[in-house]
Amino acid sequence: MKTDKILLGHGSGGSLTHDLISSLFLKHFTNPILDVQGDSALLDISAWEISMTTDSFVVDPLFFPGGDIGKLAIAGTVNDLAVSGAVPQYLSAAFIIEEGFPLADLERIVISMAAEAKKANVHIVTGDTKVVERGKCDKLFINTTGIGILDEEHEKICCGCKVEAGDMILLNGAIGNHGMAIMAERNELNLSAKITSDCACLNHMIAKVLDAGVRVKFMRDATRGGLSTVLHELVKGKDFGLEIEESALKVDEEVQGICELLGFDPMYVANEGKVVMLVHHDDAQKALEILQSDEFGKDASIIGEIVGSHLGKAYINTSIGGKRILDMLSGEQLPRIC
Amino acid sequence: MKTDKILLGHGSGGSLTHDLISSLFLKHFTNPILDVQGDSALLDISAWEISMTTDSFVVDPLFFPGGDIGKLAIAGTVNDLAVSGAVPQYLSAAFIIEEGFPLADLERIVISMAAEAKKANVHIVTGDTKVVERGKCDKLFINTTGIGILDEEHEKICCGCKVEAGDMILLNGAIGNHGMAIMAERNELNLSAKITSDCACLNHMIAKVLDAGVRVKFMRDATRGGLSTVLHELVKGKDFGLEIEESALKVDEEVQGICELLGFDPMYVANEGKVVMLVHHDDAQKALEILQSDEFGKDASIIGEIVGSHLGKAYINTSIGGKRILDMLSGEQLPRIC
Repeated sequence: MKTDKILLGHGSGGSLTHDLISSLFLKHFTNPILDVQGDSALLDISAWEISMTTDSFVVDPLFFPGGDIGKLAIAGTVNDLAVSGAVPQYLSAAFIIEEGFPLADLERIVISMAAEAKKANVHIVTGDTKVVERGKCDKLFINTTGIGILDEEHEKICCGCKVEAGDMILLNGAIGNHGMAIMAERNELNLSAKITSDCACLNHMIAKVLDAGVRVKFMRDATRGGLSTVLHELVKGKDFGLEIEESALKVDEEVQGICELLGFDPMYVANEGKVVMLVHHDDAQKALEILQSDEFGKDASIIGEIVGSHLGKAYINTSIGGKRILDMLSGEQLPRIC
Repeated sequence: MKTDKILLGHGSGGSLTHDLISSLFLKHFTNPILDVQGDSALLDISAWEISMTTDSFVVDPLFFPGGDIGKLAIAGTVNDLAVSGAVPQYLSAAFIIEEGFPLADLERIVISMAAEAKKANVHIVTGDTKVVERGKCDKLFINTTGIGILDEEHEKICCGCKVEAGDMILLNGAIGNHGMAIMAERNELNLSAKITSDCACLNHMIAKVLDAGVRVKFMRDATRGGLSTVLHELVKGKDFGLEIEESALKVDEEVQGICELLGFDPMYVANEGKVVMLVHHDDAQKALEILQSDEFGKDASIIGEIVGSHLGKAYINTSIGGKRILDMLSGEQLPRIC
């Protein structure tokens, strides 16, 4: 049966499902492991310790300047693995599709996922497709779950248990772009300059820093909840505090503008290509230079420091000489930005 | 904030998300790996080869006789790993929740997942929560992705490349229960006897067969598309065929009744606790006895055989002496049964 829309039968496990898998998913995601088409994928793992992470993506709209739900679904999971110190290797991809969804849009998204996976050097090895009736989901949701290989020397990065006063805090560029790109697109704001999402896989950039021997103590990508939430979590309940300098933070002019217009604080707006990196004091300059040499870290800066005072609290020193506490996002600022 | 319903803020990544994670997910799923609460879970893997599988669950209704979406989300993924010959070990759990969903129902489902995971001896090590606006998803969808450890001697089970004429086909009980339990519940059919889903984790039963040294050639669980679809796929494009005996198949009386009433063929109705197992001819009796000694295999039987004739085709010898070809499910029989 030829159709240009997703039918309920595409999720039945029968012949339509098989057609969809072979003509779309296998075609674009093809690799020797996926092509076996078993209920499970068989993976060679050259390590005794692995890292595993999962994320569902429900972003609205599906397409936005700088990316789409497919690119986001790869980058989000790749970055979660990379910030744990692991080398991302294998991903699963599970689709929940609304009946009637245009096949052309699905193909565009699948192609975007394949391209991003290739860039990040990860393989999509297993998948699932479910179709729900019209009105029972919003167009398309994607879950990706990832596995990365963890080197013994990096296994303490994930827990952050080596963080200590004096460690420097780095950030690889401007904040707030992803959330505001979604917001502008959703509200069809007519802006003079388009805001582009920072959505990107950061694993290669992070690997450069680790491979250079920089003593990385902790990393986290500043997604939902924004930079402020990450910094708050970083010190919460710990026997150290942190201070960052507002003057060291970068916010693009257009992002600043729309934030002011709509009443958002860029510190709480989601990013999809920003990593907060804590490194040993003596390695900060080296790490900064490596970040700045990467396409996703050109605007990197040292934004602050771990301190032995005000334990458990994160402070920002404002540009006008004030001091403000950084809290976690409370309530909902922007639903469905990822 | 005290609330008995899911709010959009529960998916924001901020403080409400944290409350939900600690008061619900961590409380019930607790284990040392999950409790670290990193972006990724760190897993010790005592093997060089692992098996990975993913499934999203969109079953409607969420609660049904014999199970609920939570139990199903564990059993479905555990079984996909087990039929690949792997020992299921770690699961991720990702929730997409509709705004306004009752927290009490979510807790009931989470408790059900925790109980089933305990039975199957698997650990939920990482998770994700997204909340979408009212009307943008149907109550609750769950994705589980699983990792299992694969023993070298079982690595050929997944591909089925050792299957040959003479191999016997076993099934661990009656067919059609899951699909018809969902159907009856959905349509509020007033049946004299309740149909109970066969939803169960089969990994321990399968392990008994493997550990006894039975030469298992291939396994698959007969879920979406039913037994017929699995048997069709098993021989499609292969240089062997198969024949099964209708008289060896079991269909519960109530399942038969509702299938006739609503015009379904039990051969195409989904199961969630049935495994099709191909074993070496000489090991069939031994495998049968092991299956029958297990709570989920009491009604196991040898249903047929791999044959060297009618290559690529699956036949059923009917009880009245006829012969019918088994095809794949075409179109949609029953949407959202898993």
